[in-house]
Amino acid sequence: MITSTSNAQIKDIRKLDQRKYRKESGLFYVEGLRAIISALDNHAPVEKLVFCPELLESTHGKEVLQRAECAGIALLEVNRPVFESVSLKENPQGMCAVVRQNMRKLQTSTNLSGLWVALEGVQDPGNLGSVLRTLDAVGGQGLILIGEGTDAFHPTSVRASMGAIFTMQLYQAEVDGFIEWKQTQPVDVIGAVCGAVWDYRGYNYAENTVLLMGSEQKGLPKVLQQACTALVTIPMCGSVDSLNLANATSVLLYEIYNQHFPLRKK
Amino acid sequence: MITSTSNAQIKDIRKLDQRKYRKESGLFYVEGLRAIISALDNHAPVEKLVFCPELLESTHGKEVLQRAECAGIALLEVNRPVFESVSLKENPQGMCAVVRQNMRKLQTSTNLSGLWVALEGVQDPGNLGSVLRTLDAVGGQGLILIGEGTDAFHPTSVRASMGAIFTMQLYQAEVDGFIEWKQTQPVDVIGAVCGAVWDYRGYNYAENTVLLMGSEQKGLPKVLQQACTALVTIPMCGSVDSLNLANATSVLLYEIYNQHFPLRKK
Repeated sequence: MITSTSNAQIKDIRKLDQRKYRKESGLFYVEGLRAIISALDNHAPVEKLVFCPELLESTHGKEVLQRAECAGIALLEVNRPVFESVSLKENPQGMCAVVRQNMRKLQTSTNLSGLWVALEGVQDPGNLGSVLRTLDAVGGQGLILIGEGTDAFHPTSVRASMGAIFTMQLYQAEVDGFIEWKQTQPVDVIGAVCGAVWDYRGYNYAENTVLLMGSEQKGLPKVLQQACTALVTIPMCGSVDSLNLANATSVLLYEIYNQHFPLRKK
Repeated sequence: MITSTSNAQIKDIRKLDQRKYRKESGLFYVEGLRAIISALDNHAPVEKLVFCPELLESTHGKEVLQRAECAGIALLEVNRPVFESVSLKENPQGMCAVVRQNMRKLQTSTNLSGLWVALEGVQDPGNLGSVLRTLDAVGGQGLILIGEGTDAFHPTSVRASMGAIFTMQLYQAEVDGFIEWKQTQPVDVIGAVCGAVWDYRGYNYAENTVLLMGSEQKGLPKVLQQACTALVTIPMCGSVDSLNLANATSVLLYEIYNQHFPLRKK
């Protein structure tokens, strides 16, 4: 059992709250039973699992531990002060994991099918994570991150995704790279903007669709708007001039879902 | 010009980041030009406006200052260190305000008409604020906060509302009080739960509707479910078992909006 908070492995785990070290190591930090179960269910590359017997009270937690051991994942037993030194929660459940990032370059992928979201320059990791969560709920395939923005493996994004960080495919591209990629792919890219030609309810979304959203502050840059198959807008009749990014994405994703899986009338 | 960060008025403003002092004083803190303009547009009870000439560079900002002065609002000129001591932003625009809370008891209201959201035990102020933002966008009337939860006047809620904290009516009730109130009012209360009878797309929402959402962690308590006119659910076909609260609320609000204001076919 590790009993020192200055143990080298523990120090490395704490560093994963910084983007710089996530980038250098290619790893990220996951906390909580639900997220770790999702990682195991989806065969995510879990590098190590840290547990604290004193905090891990539920039989459920012990089952997860056994399951990880069977899968050949390295287990690190730590005492309570050590666990609390890595935990980001107020009442930690006593289990966290270090997982290898599953981000790929968009250029390496061809023939993406189904429903995707692309976020350009997204700033808020909570928005990023909750978009993953809704995308999972509508049966989407994955997320494309374009340009500079927050990091999908930020602890807030991971937590907000409620496990969808492990179910959704993740790709990364620069703005130019995305535009080039789009030109060679049999996929519609639908951009969301203010005052576009199409009311989002009136457009017929293709089976293979990338829903493209701009950043919270600046919206979708012109160069990306021009690369879109169509531009859609969400009507608004109040005083605010836009919706929260994740809320807008959810409204659009459910419209696409509703068109593809209409309600059967009784 | 106030040049001391320990000035009594400045200390009182800083205290407004604590719920306790917001409750005691009945005031809240608003930062940024957009939010302050929304406060003025909606005749919110602005108690004082704090500005820092060094930071307030835009002519737009100076116009807002003139407008506040014409409206008889007390102006407090401060230097940069003082402004930075109250500001919650990284790059402050040089203007903030202290506003009186406009929260009313639900029991005092009768005949609420139009579209409302009720949130029971909401925990995350960012969710609360972005629900206000979407509710404004669909032409909603206001928000009812039920039971213990976060505070609508938390700085994160105010910021996330993008000014909708001033356009939406705000009511507060205990769980029992809400149920009693509902029994005497000509309004439908539609609860959102998992696995309810109605797919949310199949229900016909009345003109006077309160959309009732449970908390992020626990969902809607049974006693509130029983008080509902109907329960609806959002279909999900992935791995996650729920949506983010504000995302789910936005999807439901836009379904209601779409039923009330259907797209005119060209």
